[in-house]
This record gives sequence, structure tokens and C-alpha cells, in this order.
Amino acid sequence: MKIIVLGGDGFCGWPASLELANAGHSVLIVDSLVRRQIDEELGVDSLTPIAPTDQRIKSARDHGMGSIAFERLDVSSDYDTLLKVVTDFEPDAIVHYAEQRAAPYSMKSSWHRRYTVNNNISATHNILSAIVDSRRDIHLVHLGTMGVYGYNTIGAVVPEGYLDIQVPDANGDFQQRSILYPADPGSVYHMTKTQDQLLFYFYNKNYKVRVTDLHQGIVWGTNTALTLKDESLVNRFDYDGDFGTVLNRFLMQASCGYPLTVHGSGGQERAFIHIKDSVQCIRLALETPPAAGERVRIFNQATEVHKVLNLAHLVARVTGAEVQHVPNPRVESENNELKIKSEGLIGLGLQPTRLSEGLMGEILETAQKYRHRARLDKIPCTSSWRA
Amino acid sequence: MKIIVLGGDGFCGWPASLELANAGHSVLIVDSLVRRQIDEELGVDSLTPIAPTDQRIKSARDHGMGSIAFERLDVSSDYDTLLKVVTDFEPDAIVHYAEQRAAPYSMKSSWHRRYTVNNNISATHNILSAIVDSRRDIHLVHLGTMGVYGYNTIGAVVPEGYLDIQVPDANGDFQQRSILYPADPGSVYHMTKTQDQLLFYFYNKNYKVRVTDLHQGIVWGTNTALTLKDESLVNRFDYDGDFGTVLNRFLMQASCGYPLTVHGSGGQERAFIHIKDSVQCIRLALETPPAAGERVRIFNQATEVHKVLNLAHLVARVTGAEVQHVPNPRVESENNELKIKSEGLIGLGLQPTRLSEGLMGEILETAQKYRHRARLDKIPCTSSWRA
Repeated sequence: MKIIVLGGDGFCGWPASLELANAGHSVLIVDSLVRRQIDEELGVDSLTPIAPTDQRIKSARDHGMGSIAFERLDVSSDYDTLLKVVTDFEPDAIVHYAEQRAAPYSMKSSWHRRYTVNNNISATHNILSAIVDSRRDIHLVHLGTMGVYGYNTIGAVVPEGYLDIQVPDANGDFQQRSILYPADPGSVYHMTKTQDQLLFYFYNKNYKVRVTDLHQGIVWGTNTALTLKDESLVNRFDYDGDFGTVLNRFLMQASCGYPLTVHGSGGQERAFIHIKDSVQCIRLALETPPAAGERVRIFNQATEVHKVLNLAHLVARVTGAEVQHVPNPRVESENNELKIKSEGLIGLGLQPTRLSEGLMGEILETAQKYRHRARLDKIPCTSSWRA
Repeated sequence: MKIIVLGGDGFCGWPASLELANAGHSVLIVDSLVRRQIDEELGVDSLTPIAPTDQRIKSARDHGMGSIAFERLDVSSDYDTLLKVVTDFEPDAIVHYAEQRAAPYSMKSSWHRRYTVNNNISATHNILSAIVDSRRDIHLVHLGTMGVYGYNTIGAVVPEGYLDIQVPDANGDFQQRSILYPADPGSVYHMTKTQDQLLFYFYNKNYKVRVTDLHQGIVWGTNTALTLKDESLVNRFDYDGDFGTVLNRFLMQASCGYPLTVHGSGGQERAFIHIKDSVQCIRLALETPPAAGERVRIFNQATEVHKVLNLAHLVARVTGAEVQHVPNPRVESENNELKIKSEGLIGLGLQPTRLSEGLMGEILETAQKYRHRARLDKIPCTSSWRA
């Protein structure tokens, strides 16, 4: 299969690109490298020393993982080149990771809110437009987020994208309908993903574009079997207050002798998935695309749920680290129950990797190996959801 | 009250600005004048000869309708100036008409799709950001569209924004919930209005911005009592295939001896409102804002529903014009039933102007007076919803 991976230099995009190339697919990474520029803006760097993009790609070829092409391009602002790339490469599928993906970064300031909205909406819409304009039947696989559902709106078990409801018809008789789950975004970043859903809905309805939207949980872990093959293939490890995510951050904090900082009570229940499973899900979704004419296919790309405080206590038990509650920068309920369905990707063949002390040990090893690279002053979240 | 009217030079914005100024409010029109530029792009002009913006405003003052200030500004692209204008003027409310508002224009080409998305989403988000950044409690009144609901998705009587549904909770017991009505946009333009709803939802939830979203039906009529006071105050009259809307277009076609072109069967049932009522609704929504902390207030700004074919037959009966069916450029169901609720604005004091042959006569007079300005070759809709 010929696959374009937009955002293929990023935390999820890079191991997915390796996985797809190694499975025999022809991969073209398209990336603006803006994520590396944001590291410079924030004065941080991946805890792991990630190689320049061309060096990573050369190393992948040297290790027999297949040939990956690369085009540096900002898909949110350079439509003409995007269309040319799509037309020339003739992909069967496009994987879309090319969005600003951090909630705290999206809430840092007015500029960051506007950057996130303009960048993410333009990127997604440009990609859909290029698919239509190319006149090719291209399957679009998008990385969404479990955060589109919110955490308290409905009270139902969170289904995979669509909610069955009872509504009265014009005669007052109740009828069953399947609707897109009512969106309840918790940040500007999450809001853009709920807006993306409407872009997919319309382009699927009007132009019959085949779309899979994968609502991913919080990713933990750093490496896959392929990124472990050589240090030049290593994946990003974000620990800063903007891009660091909760379980990886706790393990890094424990490795550095830094208390495990829990935002508010820690009663927030969230969905999680290991990076190894994340890349498998992408491959599975690509290899079994939705049928022509099918509505937007939505899967929950998450394998388990945990309360943040329980994760902190688990890491504390394994490492001896101290747990510290800090003020919550977010405007959110600090106690919620989360029940989710996630059967779709298992139906395609996913074998879930559950949270285990063994896998946590692997992350701890990585964090300890590179802890001399950490800037501890960058750990606290300095964004605020309050004006 | 101090009110900024964004898009105050347009078809709805201009008569609303006059109404508000004449009612004693202090009005600042902010407009990029892009709508006049689009006329040039399309090679058409308003059927009525609209005066330049500064001349209109001078005439309004000369006729004792109060003082209107004007700032030429593109709110979608010049955020810093927008924030300065909001900070300096210190408005109590902002009316937001500053979006590309034509479905056919939004579907003309790839460029037009992308222009509509980028322009409309950036405009709405910049305005919300400016309200937050100004640190003022400003009531935002937005012109939405009845098209956010779609025409066939649910089958319920279309409520004012929110739908009461029954959903099973985690125990399988059905609970009543109030959700934003499931969006079903029929064009890229309509899609942007459904995305706007999510912007309002988040900024209201997180930053407590007070928002009224007015889902307007198809506007008919041209003039209000105030725009009739002098030819220099006359309102726009669009009849071209992109910006012309159905009832006004039929009346113009009848005046020019052009057959009444019905797209497809004409069985589409749509919501309507007269321009006189549209401006009253804006004033009423502004003068009774939602309370602090209230969720986004949504009203259906429409007073009646009609099937397109019935309107064509009505105009044919009054004028003797011929009805002609032409291929439908849209991808849509050509037969639907529409039942709507629209009690909110009546509760605020709206006295609906119903469709009558008398008011149609007024529009016919206007159309006949200016028919020498018409370009008949611009009447057909050349946009297509098909790739």
C-alpha cells in the first residue's frame, strides 16, 4: 500500500511510519518539523536524543526497515504543494497526525489558542480538499482524541463515536437514532478535534471520502520494537508541562527524584494506550479500510482506563517517589467515572498491551538513561485554563 | 448600549446597524468590505445601487438616525487591530455577521471551500479571543443558520438549539439529557456554522462568555422602514446564483421576464424570515442578554416554513411568470418536511411579519425599479456540490 504519513516525524507518527515501512508499505513522511521548533520556543528538548529526520530515515533503511521518503511541508498553509504531493505520490491512504496536539500548549496564551485553531482546522480541511481535488479514492486515517467526548456530559458508557438515542418524532412517538456523540471539549486543542469531526462528517457525506477517526487515549511508553533497534531510531519522550503526558511524566519525575505532581485531587479517570498498541492500531485501520459509501468509521483507540491518582500511587510504590498535589491548571471536574467501549480495533486484530510494572520498568530505564538531559524547571504546567 | 456590528455593511448588517443606531445605541461598524469585492469577482452587483459605506453612514446621520462609526478591518486576519478596536470602543455587545454567508459560493471550487473555512473559523475564533483578551463582559450575538440542523437527520420538531434525549447511563437506566442538536450541515458554509457552535460552546463553558446564537432562516425582502428613507440608504438585493436566495430571486426573475428556476423537485421545505423581522430580532436579543453563567442561548430566527415549489407557484400566480425545474446543484434530499420551534424571540417581543402578497408587491416594485441593472446571465447557480 502507498501511504502518506502527515506529521510522521512526531511522537506517534515516527514509530507508526517505521511500523508501516517495515510491514512492506511504501511510506512518504510529510512533516513541517514545527514540533521540533516548538521545543526551541519552550526551551526544552525530548528527554531522548532524537536524530534529525533525514538521519532517522537513513538509519531505518540501513536496518532493513524499508524505504521511507520525506517531504518537508506545512500542510496547513501550503495547499498547492500538498495537492502536488498527493497527486504525484498516488497514495492509497493518508494518515493525519499533522496537528498541534497538546492541550496545555493550546491554552498558554491568546496566540497559542489562535495558532492551534488556525493550524489544526486548516490542516484537516486542506487534506480533505486535496483528497477531493486529486480525484483519487484515498482512505484518510485521522488521530482524534478520547477528549472529544468530554467526561461528564451524558453519563453513558462512551461508545465508539456514535450514540444511540431515543427522540420524539413530529408525532411525539420515540424513535431510535444514531448520532455523533455530543462533543464536550475540555481545551482549545480538544475543541479543534471536535471541529475536525464535522469536517469529516461533511466530506464523507457529500464527497464520499472514506475516513477512519481514531479517538486515542493518553499514550504511555516511548519505544516500539523498531525504535529500540538503534539509538538513531529512538522516539521522542516529552516531559515538559505542555507536551508531557501523565504516566510518562510520573515515571520521568521518579527517575529524577522529583515529586509526582498530581493536578488537583487526581480523581480524573482517563483512557490510556501504550505506544506499541497505538502504531498497531494505525496499521490495522489502514489494512482494513471502511467500505465505499460507509459513514465515518470511528474507533476508540484506548485499551484501559485509570484514575490519575492511582497511577501516581502505583509509580510511587514501584519507585519510592513522593506524591504531591498541585493546583489544577484546568477548568474541569476533578472526579469523574469513565466507562468506554473499545471493541472495534480488537475486532481488527489488536492484542492489547495492558499496564504492567514490567513495561513501566522499561520506561524508567529510558528515563534514567537520559535524565542528565532533563530540565526540571520545565516540568510544571504553567498554562492556565483561566483567563 | 455600545455595540460593534461586525459585517455591518452587508445585507443583514446594514439595516441592523441603522435600526440599532436609530434606537439610540452607539454603533461601530467593522467591515472588511470583502462582500463588495466578491461582487467584483463574480461580475455582478446588488440589484439596488448601494452607496459607498461612508456615504451611507453620512446619510444616516443627516436623516437623524444617530451617529455610526466605521472601521475597515478584516477580523479574520488582523487580530491585533481587532483587539485594539474592542479595547478602545469598550462595547457592551458585539454582533457578528463577519462571515462568508453563501452556500453556493462556498462550494464553487476548492479555493472557495478553503476560503470559507479559513475565513469563518478564524473570524469567529478571533472575536471570542478578543472578548477574553479585553477582559470585558461583552455579549456576543452571532448570526447562525437554520441549516446547522439539517433536514432529515433526526425527525424531531427542530427545537431552539438543544435537543432533549433519552440515553442509557452506565447501569442501562434511561436518563434525560439536553444536548446541542446533532449537526447535519449541507454545504461547506453550513459546516462552518456548525463548527462555530463548538467555539461558542467551549468559550462559554471555559471563559463564561455570554453568547446568543441566532439560527436564521432564509431572509426575504430588501428594505426596512429606515433603509427606505433615502436611496442612499437602500439595502443590498442579491439575485445571482451564489448570493441570491430563493424568494427574492423568484421575485426578481418575475420582474425581468425570466422563468422561476426551481432546483430539482422544489419539495425542499425551508424556514423563512423577513428582513424587517431579522433586524428586530437582533435588537431584541441585544436588549435582553442572557444572564451571566447561562449556557449559549440559541434561538431560531425564523417565522414560518414553506416548500420552495409552493413559493414558486405563489409568485407565478401573482406575476404570471413561468415555473421551470432545473437540475439541483446540491447533494440533498429534494423532499423533506420541516417543523420548527421559534418561540424564544417571540418571547422577547418579536411580532412576526408573515409572507403576504402585499410585502411581495413591495419587493416586486424594488426589482422592477432596478431591473435595468440586472445581468440575467448571472442568475443560474453554476456551483456544484459534486466533485
